[in-house]
Amino acid sequence: MSKPRVIVCPSPLFLKTLPVKDSIVVVIDILRATTSICVAFGSGAAEIVPLDSIEKCRTYKEKGYLIAGERDGKMIEGFDMGNSPFSFMGEHIRNAKIAMTTTNGTKCIHASRQAYQIIIGAFVNMTAVVNYLRAQGRDVILLAAGWKDKMNLEDTAFGGAVALELENEFLPTEDSTRIAMTLYDAMLKDKRYFIKNATQYEQIIGLNIVEDVKYCLRRDLHEVLPIYQNRKLVDLLAKTKLVNIKR
Amino acid sequence: MSKPRVIVCPSPLFLKTLPVKDSIVVVIDILRATTSICVAFGSGAAEIVPLDSIEKCRTYKEKGYLIAGERDGKMIEGFDMGNSPFSFMGEHIRNAKIAMTTTNGTKCIHASRQAYQIIIGAFVNMTAVVNYLRAQGRDVILLAAGWKDKMNLEDTAFGGAVALELENEFLPTEDSTRIAMTLYDAMLKDKRYFIKNATQYEQIIGLNIVEDVKYCLRRDLHEVLPIYQNRKLVDLLAKTKLVNIKR
Repeated sequence: MSKPRVIVCPSPLFLKTLPVKDSIVVVIDILRATTSICVAFGSGAAEIVPLDSIEKCRTYKEKGYLIAGERDGKMIEGFDMGNSPFSFMGEHIRNAKIAMTTTNGTKCIHASRQAYQIIIGAFVNMTAVVNYLRAQGRDVILLAAGWKDKMNLEDTAFGGAVALELENEFLPTEDSTRIAMTLYDAMLKDKRYFIKNATQYEQIIGLNIVEDVKYCLRRDLHEVLPIYQNRKLVDLLAKTKLVNIKR
Repeated sequence: MSKPRVIVCPSPLFLKTLPVKDSIVVVIDILRATTSICVAFGSGAAEIVPLDSIEKCRTYKEKGYLIAGERDGKMIEGFDMGNSPFSFMGEHIRNAKIAMTTTNGTKCIHASRQAYQIIIGAFVNMTAVVNYLRAQGRDVILLAAGWKDKMNLEDTAFGGAVALELENEFLPTEDSTRIAMTLYDAMLKDKRYFIKNATQYEQIIGLNIVEDVKYCLRRDLHEVLPIYQNRKLVDLLAKTKLVNIKR
């Protein structure tokens, strides 16, 4: 049997060139949407509805959802949380339904709607993602959300990190995959690589989210596997745990 | 005065996200169009008309042009040359007008038509490109043609190589630029990187163009600077030489 493929897609712009239909797509937006989603499930959230606008998000307030989002790094009036992973920790998150505005994330999910499955990946749930992909043994597309269709370091590097983990059982396909693997390898060899090279680093300092960035680059803080089903995200591992308990 | 920017654009798909209008765009298609264009000017060609189809190319035959191109790695009936750089060496090229089919190259030139200038870059004329860009001191976009809109190793790496050369006088902008610089750095540290990692390497072996690839990765074989003017490419350095002689 031939090995399944693993492909790093370094921007949603490239999705149309790839075999999305029968693949598991991993949506990656390390700073900060997919990290925060993992944190929310790590804190026991019941479901997260990803939305592309503030207005749509606001309509979920009266349905009993917590609503989350920021614009230009600032909280939105009437919203319960911003985008920081630290917003999604604590007892108020347990069993909560959350509606979250995330422009890049929602765009990636929409662009991947033909996929076999859509899951959410970040450094904070990386091993859960890798284990799941290994168990499925199906073609994988690691979709770096980037920033307004452009490539960024952290999403591409995470794609490379997962591809490196899967390298033996999967067939790394496309030069973009090799480039992402090489990038992550360079980051491993130089711990200050990200700080020295991130184009948006000054913006990060300006937004005062240095602690967020440090958190987002840490590995395996949450054993969660967010999956997109019926227009919302749920934690596949939470379900599994529940089934186990019922037995 | 602020430094001019240098940006690696890893696929024509990203051009729309970049400030093309006031930049010099360097079109890069190492295997093999831009390398062969440099070789042709190094052999004394007078002009090269890049075209996207065999049919358009054929109409130039009766206008006294040599016509060049391949499809699926094979010569086209009635054509004078293929796409190999070795086709563009020898006395028959001196003062010749050439029409060349190059799908990716023509697409890139068309997509860059708003640019301040469009020039042609390859490893074989790299120093001429770097010197020209330094002398101009204007924003630069290094446009990797890639393969059917996908990123490839050799074009991205060349973009990274030029950005590394310009790093002190120019401001590397966009994460894609850092990624390309990191890629070229990895290639410098591992001479077998390309052979180990190129997705299309088996295809290269199959097409029997290993000697072409070796040639295309060599640096500074030709002191030429092809520039796109009035729908054709001419060698800016050939003109300069002529002016010097006239003086």
